[in-house]
Amino acid sequence: MADVITSVRASAPLVHCLTNVVVSQFTANVLLAAGAAPAMVHSAEEAGALARVAGGVLVNLGTVTSVTAQAMRVAVKEAAAAGRPWVLDPVAVGPLPWRTELAHELLESAPPAVIRGNPSEILALDGGGTGGRGVDSTDAPVAALAAAGALARRYGCTVAVSGPEDVLTDGTRVVRVANGDPLLPLVTGTGCSLGALVAACTAVTDDALLAATAATGLLTVAGEIAASRSAGPGTFAVALIDALYELSPDQLAEALNLR
Amino acid sequence: MADVITSVRASAPLVHCLTNVVVSQFTANVLLAAGAAPAMVHSAEEAGALARVAGGVLVNLGTVTSVTAQAMRVAVKEAAAAGRPWVLDPVAVGPLPWRTELAHELLESAPPAVIRGNPSEILALDGGGTGGRGVDSTDAPVAALAAAGALARRYGCTVAVSGPEDVLTDGTRVVRVANGDPLLPLVTGTGCSLGALVAACTAVTDDALLAATAATGLLTVAGEIAASRSAGPGTFAVALIDALYELSPDQLAEALNLR
Amino acid sequence: MADVITSVRASAPLVHCLTNVVVSQFTANVLLAAGAAPAMVHSAEEAGALARVAGGVLVNLGTVTSVTAQAMRVAVKEAAAAGRPWVLDPVAVGPLPWRTELAHELLESAPPAVIRGNPSEILALDGGGTGGRGVDSTDAPVAALAAAGALARRYGCTVAVSGPEDVLTDGTRVVRVANGDPLLPLVTGTGCSLGALVAACTAVTDDALLAATAATGLLTVAGEIAASRSAGPGTFAVALIDALYELSPDQLAEALNLR
Repeated sequence: MADVITSVRASAPLVHCLTNVVVSQFTANVLLAAGAAPAMVHSAEEAGALARVAGGVLVNLGTVTSVTAQAMRVAVKEAAAAGRPWVLDPVAVGPLPWRTELAHELLESAPPAVIRGNPSEILALDGGGTGGRGVDSTDAPVAALAAAGALARRYGCTVAVSGPEDVLTDGTRVVRVANGDPLLPLVTGTGCSLGALVAACTAVTDDALLAATAATGLLTVAGEIAASRSAGPGTFAVALIDALYELSPDQLAEALNLR
Repeated sequence: MADVITSVRASAPLVHCLTNVVVSQFTANVLLAAGAAPAMVHSAEEAGALARVAGGVLVNLGTVTSVTAQAMRVAVKEAAAAGRPWVLDPVAVGPLPWRTELAHELLESAPPAVIRGNPSEILALDGGGTGGRGVDSTDAPVAALAAAGALARRYGCTVAVSGPEDVLTDGTRVVRVANGDPLLPLVTGTGCSLGALVAACTAVTDDALLAATAATGLLTVAGEIAASRSAGPGTFAVALIDALYELSPDQLAEALNLR
Repeated sequence: MADVITSVRASAPLVHCLTNVVVSQFTANVLLAAGAAPAMVHSAEEAGALARVAGGVLVNLGTVTSVTAQAMRVAVKEAAAAGRPWVLDPVAVGPLPWRTELAHELLESAPPAVIRGNPSEILALDGGGTGGRGVDSTDAPVAALAAAGALARRYGCTVAVSGPEDVLTDGTRVVRVANGDPLLPLVTGTGCSLGALVAACTAVTDDALLAATAATGLLTVAGEIAASRSAGPGTFAVALIDALYELSPDQLAEALNLR
């Protein structure tokens, strides 16, 4: 796990993020603090060229429009053609039919390395659940474990379900990460930037479950450090970037609480 | 007033924001700190579905394009059909004819609960004034009171005019909020996030003037607390989020300076 | 140099930014802290009207799409017609052919006051270099000096090449600014907001080389102050805004390290 983080810092993988406009700045700063190199290109004219040379590609559906959807289709196709891993963050899939269809279309066009979402999104993506409420989950991660396993086996990928305790599976193995802090969901973009960190980690290891677990551990342990220095979600968001920057692989390994 | 803030925290209303890309992150963090649940969906394909289930809808014209204008039309129509309140923030209406026409079209399609703007925007929306300079106002709030009252009566809504002293009216009653700090306009998105807070408050009370006054009080009192802990606009923006998070309804009631 | 900064604060020039969605918030806050008035309008329907009345116009290609490219074309044309200076930030020009062509089209339609980029972007814009890696430069500023001079003479503009030591030229004179801090490139948008500060400074002086040097000095000296108060890139970004706000023209003149 610590090796993955060390490799990201050593190789500074280019992470092509097709992500939403709400979290773009925070996501870029999270990637920079972790040692990766963010690049955000939203046009169908260019998304393919960047995906082909990126270490990893993130597709986050948060504020997708017909214009950026086209860029996502191109990026996923070209990433797959060039053997680059891509990560799907199916924001608000379930209650919103248009993006739910888009998520399935992208998954069918090329299997992702990792799907990262909240429990409601993972349940909905598997065809079940009642759907969350926008970006909020109305289900616990463990309730989505069966759905996560089914998705993982269907697409040959890893599924990371975020929550107070994160649950990750590649369809066979299951890992739980019991780190984090209640302030994390009070800052917009922490979940979305986890997707970006996962994409960064998939650039340095072929084991997608390891990549997703390392990214999850990094963000949630940094969250614990940040919380100890914060007066509220404002100072927490700032301290989180500092913590990601300074956290050593050894500190991470020691603080990680895997189950 | 304190009850409105308490209700927002207790019910965490979903606030659908069709807002500009400059302030999206800050707006989401303001809503989260205040206890609301932000959701930002920009496509015509989805804006209606979210508006129907949102507690309140914000339409902010800051960086509107032909693509997002279409999403705004759908969101306003569907919010009205489902009986959901919507709030208009007519950013830079006046000097820019295209969005000025769009603002009138949206207002005619369904009356909003609240219009929140700076004095120049409110004057321009009422058909008068010389127009501001982009997002800046060149007029004082009190100079826009007659225009605010006329708009309020025309659409049966509340109009909130922001400035050093905020002036709010439902066409009959007038409230002035004399809280705030000169650092507030030095952080981008404080006015825009006030519009989002107003939308959050309209989700928990049918009295739109009360909702707008509570939101204005919350943001401006939090601004005073933040200013007392800041060295400049950078630290102020961070402290503002913390202050919104920690401010108790009792503290708010005590610090409010209504006239 | 100090006079330029004083003039920006005294006249608060309106800076129309057609910039990327990742850095919009940070750019606006940088401009506000420096005393300028940011305005961001992205639609072809409105970009021209704002460009005609702006003190300076920034065109940053970061997340350009076919929709915003059209707004850029209109803004550059109308800025030129009204005699307003415009600044090009050719983000990721080189490896991405579509925006490279767009950059050349914009430059041919009307000469800019300033082109600000990293060495790889400047080399690529001049038709040479191997191209950088997304927003990263793989070349040193001094390596791009010949290309910068050629571009400056071709368009009759100033070219500012950012890096550990910034190099600026109008095709005849060359200035080097040896201020800054390694934390600057670890915060997304510091380079992009330098482009915006350059646009603000071109609004108050006809000497584009002086404007670009003043803006570069302001940001890099503020970066040094911020670094002395920071624990990492999170606190640094916040302290940078405070430093821009409080830095006096005299302090700037004293700390500047020109070569």
